[in-house]
Amino acid sequence: MAASTATTDVFLSGKYKTVLISVDTSSSSLVNPPPKPLLIGSPAEVAGEFPVMVLLHGYMMETSFYSQLIQHVSSHGYIMVAPQLYTCAASDSTDDINAAAATTNWLSQGLAAVLPSQVSANLAKLVLAGHSRGGKGAFALALGKSSTPLALSFSALLGIDPVDGAASCCCKFQTKPPVLTKVAQSFDLNMPVMVVGSGLGEDKKYKVFPACAPKGLNHAAFFEECRSPAWHFVAKDYGHMDMLDDDTKGIRGVVSYCMCENGSSREPMRRFVGGAAVAFLRAYLGGDDRDLMALQDTPDIAPVQITVEARL
Amino acid sequence: MAASTATTDVFLSGKYKTVLISVDTSSSSLVNPPPKPLLIGSPAEVAGEFPVMVLLHGYMMETSFYSQLIQHVSSHGYIMVAPQLYTCAASDSTDDINAAAATTNWLSQGLAAVLPSQVSANLAKLVLAGHSRGGKGAFALALGKSSTPLALSFSALLGIDPVDGAASCCCKFQTKPPVLTKVAQSFDLNMPVMVVGSGLGEDKKYKVFPACAPKGLNHAAFFEECRSPAWHFVAKDYGHMDMLDDDTKGIRGVVSYCMCENGSSREPMRRFVGGAAVAFLRAYLGGDDRDLMALQDTPDIAPVQITVEARL
Repeated sequence: MAASTATTDVFLSGKYKTVLISVDTSSSSLVNPPPKPLLIGSPAEVAGEFPVMVLLHGYMMETSFYSQLIQHVSSHGYIMVAPQLYTCAASDSTDDINAAAATTNWLSQGLAAVLPSQVSANLAKLVLAGHSRGGKGAFALALGKSSTPLALSFSALLGIDPVDGAASCCCKFQTKPPVLTKVAQSFDLNMPVMVVGSGLGEDKKYKVFPACAPKGLNHAAFFEECRSPAWHFVAKDYGHMDMLDDDTKGIRGVVSYCMCENGSSREPMRRFVGGAAVAFLRAYLGGDDRDLMALQDTPDIAPVQITVEARL
Repeated sequence: MAASTATTDVFLSGKYKTVLISVDTSSSSLVNPPPKPLLIGSPAEVAGEFPVMVLLHGYMMETSFYSQLIQHVSSHGYIMVAPQLYTCAASDSTDDINAAAATTNWLSQGLAAVLPSQVSANLAKLVLAGHSRGGKGAFALALGKSSTPLALSFSALLGIDPVDGAASCCCKFQTKPPVLTKVAQSFDLNMPVMVVGSGLGEDKKYKVFPACAPKGLNHAAFFEECRSPAWHFVAKDYGHMDMLDDDTKGIRGVVSYCMCENGSSREPMRRFVGGAAVAFLRAYLGGDDRDLMALQDTPDIAPVQITVEARL
């Protein structure tokens, strides 16, 4: 048998230069300001129409912490829209899921006005993604659990180390609204799903802190409930926050770093998560599954050690 | 002016020997088992009828952590009933408040069967108390916020470092159901209230941990919303958990100790909280306010340094 010649460019920056755009809810220059502050990543210096990914942040996280991940995906030709759903929240996610729905609905009214003039959004190719609590929110929204009705439909769903609850020192619990049902393949999503997990997310750091992505509520449980087609990538030696920027400024960033078990450096995990997202989007939005298949066949082309499961 | 001769015995053990009784929800020997496991403290080896205090525990706490406080108050002639409302819970308190209501309703059906045979409960003198999240729950229940209707009424309310919310690294929020309204004297309680606060509860330990009883959601805010008669005692150099047993076994106890700022030893604070409760009960259930007045006039008779405010 010949040596594998599998290769992919998804883990490198893509061909587009990118721009990060911050949009305020009270921007006086906008006819339709968004319902939540946005961090948008877009291809720049080029004319074109691009698919859109809505990215929901994790608990205590600022959208700016995802700026490198956002730029990675955008450089491959995607418009990334990350709303700051809340800055302070109790464990109940109901409000942030509704805010995510409202932000999604805003896209058809207000996104065009804030993109670079030569760039347009293809809202027929709309993807929903979320990290941690935002991953739970993304599944909830895709499953129709928002009380704010969705005016647009999603073509694919990406959960980045999603967590359907929280843990204290001594126990873990599902937060509202519950998403996991504990029934295999129960999610009636009608769209392809990719779940990316962190191998260290279910570990405790320093014993005192609870696990950031406790077992039974984390990526593995989400994948278990997905129907075909669904992908599950787990990065063995990386933690729940390792897809964030290297420098997550301020107390929130410090706490996120201190509380969760981390890999040795965030850069490989961030490139992996960004690249896996691109491979997934190319397959299910672009009809080109070569990168995804290459990853399945030859997981060691990824920049981190991974396991791959697919339900096809 | 003569030196003060104020004195009180409330901070010492009282005249009754006490017994601690654990009652299970599935006890086959009971016709009416309680809806939640109970830790009961009762005067022992003596015949008599005693007032009853329902004590709601704090977040992550086990009722056993209150055994010394319970025995202190019981030794002065009170039956203490502490339900284990939950062992694992999200930030929403709705379920635990309903469980507290159900436990209260159970008292008239099942309490007599679990007390020492010569002891009887005077449910016409029923007091509600709670610590931390349980303090919030006690106020909520007294304010009629349980969906389970109360079949008994309370004669007095004691909040032990009550907290109407939680804090993460960087923010604080009110948890459901909200109790504080931010309007002075808004609580339509129609019963006397004592609020005991910890001076260190709003401090952060090691910076990484959030304050256990954050400002704006803590004892001071609760007292602000109480109407006359209301008392506010604050123990300056003690923390949010310092009224618990010296030895709070297990991971929960260790975490509670590690996460909250503490005084140098729990014993004086525990005797203070127990004694303040006894002084309050003597005044409003027993018609004898000498101890309470002595504390107001001469705060230094307390075993810890305190400030006293009264709205009479």
